[in-house]
Amino acid sequence: MGNYRIAVLPGDGIGQEVTAGAVEVLKAVGVRFGHEFTFEYGWIGGAAIDEAGTPLPEETLRLCRESDAVLLGAVGGPKWDGNPPHLRPEKGLLAIRKQLDLYANLRPVVCYDCLASASPLKPNLVQGVDFVIVRELTGGIYFGQPSGRVVENGEEKAVDTLLYKKEEIERIVRMAFTLARDRKKKVTSVDKANVLSSSRLWREVAEEVAKQFPDVELEHMLVDNAAMQIIRAPKQFDVIVTENMFGDILSDEASMLSGSLGMLPSASLSASGPSLYEPVHGSAPDIAGMNKANPIAAILSAAMMLRLSFGLATEAEAIEQAVHQALAAGLRTADLAPSGGRVVATDEMVEEIKTAVLDYT
Amino acid sequence: MGNYRIAVLPGDGIGQEVTAGAVEVLKAVGVRFGHEFTFEYGWIGGAAIDEAGTPLPEETLRLCRESDAVLLGAVGGPKWDGNPPHLRPEKGLLAIRKQLDLYANLRPVVCYDCLASASPLKPNLVQGVDFVIVRELTGGIYFGQPSGRVVENGEEKAVDTLLYKKEEIERIVRMAFTLARDRKKKVTSVDKANVLSSSRLWREVAEEVAKQFPDVELEHMLVDNAAMQIIRAPKQFDVIVTENMFGDILSDEASMLSGSLGMLPSASLSASGPSLYEPVHGSAPDIAGMNKANPIAAILSAAMMLRLSFGLATEAEAIEQAVHQALAAGLRTADLAPSGGRVVATDEMVEEIKTAVLDYT
Ligand SMILES: CC(C)[C@H](C(=O)O)[C@@H](O)C(=O)O
Ligand SMILES: CC(C)[C@H](C(=O)O)[C@@H](O)C(=O)O
Repeated sequence: MGNYRIAVLPGDGIGQEVTAGAVEVLKAVGVRFGHEFTFEYGWIGGAAIDEAGTPLPEETLRLCRESDAVLLGAVGGPKWDGNPPHLRPEKGLLAIRKQLDLYANLRPVVCYDCLASASPLKPNLVQGVDFVIVRELTGGIYFGQPSGRVVENGEEKAVDTLLYKKEEIERIVRMAFTLARDRKKKVTSVDKANVLSSSRLWREVAEEVAKQFPDVELEHMLVDNAAMQIIRAPKQFDVIVTENMFGDILSDEASMLSGSLGMLPSASLSASGPSLYEPVHGSAPDIAGMNKANPIAAILSAAMMLRLSFGLATEAEAIEQAVHQALAAGLRTADLAPSGGRVVATDEMVEEIKTAVLDYT
Repeated sequence: MGNYRIAVLPGDGIGQEVTAGAVEVLKAVGVRFGHEFTFEYGWIGGAAIDEAGTPLPEETLRLCRESDAVLLGAVGGPKWDGNPPHLRPEKGLLAIRKQLDLYANLRPVVCYDCLASASPLKPNLVQGVDFVIVRELTGGIYFGQPSGRVVENGEEKAVDTLLYKKEEIERIVRMAFTLARDRKKKVTSVDKANVLSSSRLWREVAEEVAKQFPDVELEHMLVDNAAMQIIRAPKQFDVIVTENMFGDILSDEASMLSGSLGMLPSASLSASGPSLYEPVHGSAPDIAGMNKANPIAAILSAAMMLRLSFGLATEAEAIEQAVHQALAAGLRTADLAPSGGRVVATDEMVEEIKTAVLDYT
């Protein structure tokens, strides 16, 4: 029996609907297992720009810092696309990652048997896929300085900086090895060491950290090859660890193995304070407010929160099993329609999962 | 009837075998169409390090500059993996790109009907795929300065710089639009404008260039989404234009649409001098010298040379048709085995294609 304060930042578009679904499922967990979850809401992204004139208000940050964990929806939308860089919804996301020191982004890629046919890949290639991408989230080219526009000798230029400190690499690689130890004991470190200086440092540090984990195998893979191998033979992977931008690209690619981006949860673990949980998908403005979005990525993110922030493994399993049951019963949101089954609305999917959680034995 | 000087740089590993195959096919074109091709050989990559102590000897560069076009194999191998950065085979490739001003890397992605089943993707998704990735090749994070290691306040760091000048973006985007005009009239410009300054400049310039091509549609796509869309619905693409690193990652990923990396040719067009043609695949040390490699990517690169450097469209078509015929006749190198047919050695595949070129009517 515990008391947990959860900051909920729905953000924009379908972020609203999917976090609402995840909150309902968490409430069901509370009822079933006798925990008390408190939900407090904050603005982020476009919604925060509209309400408070900035994509990450101080108030939201304070709320997060006072909470035990953060549940985020998604940010962005055409409404703010024309805004100057510092007033874009994405800045709120980047800022919260930096401010809360959310350095380790865990993106599990799992293919549910009954969804294998929803993947663009051949079912035999994706059935049984189960790996996790560990993406560095607070460094690299996302945050390096200088970054901006310069005019030199009448020439217009733009520059971005990919910077990594040794410690930043160390802690994320160590996280990957720690995870691998409880899994299939294999770490694939993805870099571009034949071109980038930062990748050569990355590779060196990975080798060093590996020495502390003699029971885990380390393999290096160039990012171009990794982009190919993820679709050529995805079952070869256990834990993939990589820098911020490569992780962004590879995890969106890998989402197709699970049939839909709507299935992928993520955890962004903090070095110091509360961690943050969010679906990998975006705000999907085209279907926002239509009760069509797949709430499963957000719901599975809530399960990750229970396991990783609160140490509630059984409760997390109850959610995961409930998701399995709903899918096995043939319920499909629109994004999963290619795999057959019966297409249902967001709230119907949530209801089914909630009920299964309440019935968990 | 023309005379053409071709510099051949086989490089390392299977680079040797596949360029040998392409040269044989070019000789057949010479016989069939009455052209004279002169082939002169130079070292590059690991072979050049062994022979001349540097991955791109001056002599090789001179040879290329005096030629009408360059045919390259592949570089790299475990033998040189422990070398210091400036003595790595890849440096030779990066240096020749920069020295010859090979700014526009064209990577066509075509799925041959009879190979559709060799792709990890479902056949109905890849059948009919026909797009080209236009990758900027002499700028961006591959060449930006500073790039290296620094120790600051006892902290070890590594840095790379993503830099683009406006003109660099302009010329590559213009190339993409020019190609699209003769194709399906659609350009997808891939960037990460929600994070990178260089991408925001890229997007602006793309918009500007688009005004000069009112008959071609321009669409912007974020790189993470592009990595997903390429496998989700590859037929939506006609011409993809993007910066150096994104192009590297996306083109290796896209190679899986054609069944094998062994099928993908490329052209690297120069702003000023001779252009360079090379297969997208690497040196594949594991099968080097075993007469197993797929020579088709190199042979199709030779066809691109005929069309783009020499204006020999019919001759290029003769090669492409010969490749089609060999595949339709059921010949498959080992990499294509999943699509059925009869597995043949490199030289047998070359022989079949050569014969078909000689018989071209
Ligand atoms: C919205 C964007 C800034 C973000 C990123 O690039 O990190 C998103 O793509 C993600 O993967 O969370
Ligand atoms: C070998 C390497 C430097 C090269 C690159 O990254 O450009 C290769 O991957 C390619 O795509 O030609």
